[in-house]
Amino acid sequence: MHLFYQPGLDGPNPPEYLSEDDSRHAIKTLRLGIGELIAVTDGQGNRYAAVITKADARRCAFRITETQTTAPRPFSIRICVAPTKNLDRIEWFVEKAVEIGIERISFFFGQHSERRVLKLERIEKIAVSAMKQSLQSFLPILDEAIPFGDLLKTISEEQRFIAHLPANEPPVHLAKAATVNGKYTVLIGPEGDFSEKEIQQAIEANFKMVTLGPNRLRTETAALTACQLLNFINA
Amino acid sequence: MHLFYQPGLDGPNPPEYLSEDDSRHAIKTLRLGIGELIAVTDGQGNRYAAVITKADARRCAFRITETQTTAPRPFSIRICVAPTKNLDRIEWFVEKAVEIGIERISFFFGQHSERRVLKLERIEKIAVSAMKQSLQSFLPILDEAIPFGDLLKTISEEQRFIAHLPANEPPVHLAKAATVNGKYTVLIGPEGDFSEKEIQQAIEANFKMVTLGPNRLRTETAALTACQLLNFINA
Repeated sequence: MHLFYQPGLDGPNPPEYLSEDDSRHAIKTLRLGIGELIAVTDGQGNRYAAVITKADARRCAFRITETQTTAPRPFSIRICVAPTKNLDRIEWFVEKAVEIGIERISFFFGQHSERRVLKLERIEKIAVSAMKQSLQSFLPILDEAIPFGDLLKTISEEQRFIAHLPANEPPVHLAKAATVNGKYTVLIGPEGDFSEKEIQQAIEANFKMVTLGPNRLRTETAALTACQLLNFINA
Repeated sequence: MHLFYQPGLDGPNPPEYLSEDDSRHAIKTLRLGIGELIAVTDGQGNRYAAVITKADARRCAFRITETQTTAPRPFSIRICVAPTKNLDRIEWFVEKAVEIGIERISFFFGQHSERRVLKLERIEKIAVSAMKQSLQSFLPILDEAIPFGDLLKTISEEQRFIAHLPANEPPVHLAKAATVNGKYTVLIGPEGDFSEKEIQQAIEANFKMVTLGPNRLRTETAALTACQLLNFINA
């Protein structure tokens, strides 16, 4: 069964067509025709069984035959990460994190960030295709990159961690610091790491310093490792 | 401190020069000069403090001043994976697995593998730079791709897992199936999955079927997730 993405299907005026990308994929690539069954998700936890009613490669029409709603997970993972200099690295982080399971990805620019611009459009496409690929019904929230100080004001999760080694005490592993079924948020610094000021701001905002393991990890590896770890303790 | 790689430093005739790549990097890129301190690892657990004695961009000479030996980890992780159709994906897996920590990566061709050729040279370079990047002293073993049946004959690890869902029983999560400080090996199938015959061969070779989580993962994501998981249970 092929999974497509069409937001707003449980809204007031549910769309009756697949997006142009999905229409092309369904009709041109997969060569699906009228009467064939497809699955469509709205990225909000709803998955629909549907039948193709118009095999148009630009506007593929479908009729919903069945609705299946998935409950959100009892925990939520939010990773806040500084975009890497090389965009591929952050794009694969997004792909992998979505495959594995993540609720929200927030980008920020740190004082030591080399990259100062991040376009979300491409990253959103990657997130959508990773959601489909891994057959999930939830599309994570993706937040535009903002300065670190502004990001801290947006944090509502109770379990707050920053991937940074404390100066004078032994490091605590995220796997030990986090407790199950929590609302987690983890801050991952840029290649140039967090500035002292940023560390202080995070501590004042009740972030706990944690380690993700014995090795020095690249920004995107650290971000994915934090996501993996929080999924595992809830497995 | 910059970490370089030069195998054979604890052998009978230890090399007195960095490789051509590392020499260029040290002298041309980093502009290091005579008398400057560097770190060199042999990839076998030995790390050497050294002084540059000849700043030659093709043959940078160094003198070892101190040796530090790291013991192998009390556990070992071996991931056996079928190369992906798109090489970037397997190269990415190798980079990330080495950063996080892995002892051995073995490639195999399954009955459903689309890719039938894999050159190790590029993958070895990626492994070396990931080892340096993450400041480790061990370079994992990388095995040439061989047919699945031949691979099974090379397995010596006691804790054996295959990422595949059993047909008639509830799946067991790798995190629950593996016990700490073990010698682990995990089989990750190609995009086309394992064949029935391969599953049978693995079961006969005492591999336990495990799941890596609720979502359908790409080959390279599954391989990295298995590696992350086995690192975490030993954290």
